[in-house]
Amino acid sequence: MAEPIDFYFDFSSPYGYFMAEKIDALAEAHGRTARWRPYLLGAVYKVTGDVPLPSKPLKGEYAKRDFERSARFLGLTCRIPQAFPIGTQVAARAYYWLEDNDPALARRFALAALRAYFVDGRDISQEAAVLDIAAAAGADRAALAEALAGEAIRQRLKDECAQAIERGVFGSPFVIIDGEPFWGVDRIPQIERWLATGGF
Amino acid sequence: MAEPIDFYFDFSSPYGYFMAEKIDALAEAHGRTARWRPYLLGAVYKVTGDVPLPSKPLKGEYAKRDFERSARFLGLTCRIPQAFPIGTQVAARAYYWLEDNDPALARRFALAALRAYFVDGRDISQEAAVLDIAAAAGADRAALAEALAGEAIRQRLKDECAQAIERGVFGSPFVIIDGEPFWGVDRIPQIERWLATGGF
Repeated sequence: MAEPIDFYFDFSSPYGYFMAEKIDALAEAHGRTARWRPYLLGAVYKVTGDVPLPSKPLKGEYAKRDFERSARFLGLTCRIPQAFPIGTQVAARAYYWLEDNDPALARRFALAALRAYFVDGRDISQEAAVLDIAAAAGADRAALAEALAGEAIRQRLKDECAQAIERGVFGSPFVIIDGEPFWGVDRIPQIERWLATGGF
Repeated sequence: MAEPIDFYFDFSSPYGYFMAEKIDALAEAHGRTARWRPYLLGAVYKVTGDVPLPSKPLKGEYAKRDFERSARFLGLTCRIPQAFPIGTQVAARAYYWLEDNDPALARRFALAALRAYFVDGRDISQEAAVLDIAAAAGADRAALAEALAGEAIRQRLKDECAQAIERGVFGSPFVIIDGEPFWGVDRIPQIERWLATGGF
């Protein structure tokens, strides 16, 4: 069985959301699975000195237009929420705690949280929203709330972010296939060819 | 007749080079023409505070790999030159002087200069190289050399850069179709659909 594809994203990244809607089918079409790795772009920006795309001169204005056009191009819906970008520590921590207990549930939670934010405009920076979405996906709300209050899950997310940066991950989405890195949802055509041919 | 497509690029941008190899056929397939607009990314960076891609932490390493992989994906050759990135004022000034006299010659010069740099590794920051390439494309070497020594062509390029920034142009390649902006050679699929459907 071939190694899973690593799929890094930040819950506040529209392009990351688009890839989340595509990556599993993409992987499955080539007999692979995807390993979802939410992380924090803010942790990368501390290393790179970068700032969030929407606050960049010129690029920020363009990005807002490109988010929505790229969604239409990919057959998806995306409405940039009023609060954007947001902190996604809570959502990412919830993901890892859920994954340790039930990977399929964690995946359902992640996709539901992304849709809640980018389609329905819910503010998933808030713990209550994260707990509601996780509970609706089948999680034990009280147990998750307790885990989110503890230190272990904070450290876990820090470790995941540090590991991502060590691997050269710096954007969202960021996909690694057998060591080959692909940054951006616009790399889907290259990812497809890479999976189909084993590299080019 | 539909308006021309505007194609902005910097002579030192690999992704700009890839688009230069594609844009005319892309436009022609939809009954359009492309208006080539070399400009200086350095002028944009003064506004945005950005730095050249290759010198960015994490992104720079990735970019070098992505340049060559994207070239292969697009069926093109690209060897990142030893001197990279370089100043492209002379090449851009030469382009505009040639364009004022003979647009088709200017186009031939631009593509030849990009290939000289990205395929053959010639340092096109040097005026002698620019003059040689222009002469080989059919230009009057002495007249071009004289123009490059004057103030008028310097001001012309400054004006082109200022106008580009005013239009929100900030990257290379950057394509504008009937007011709609597309940044990056990876927007070719969106550009194709836009040209085919009149917008989506």
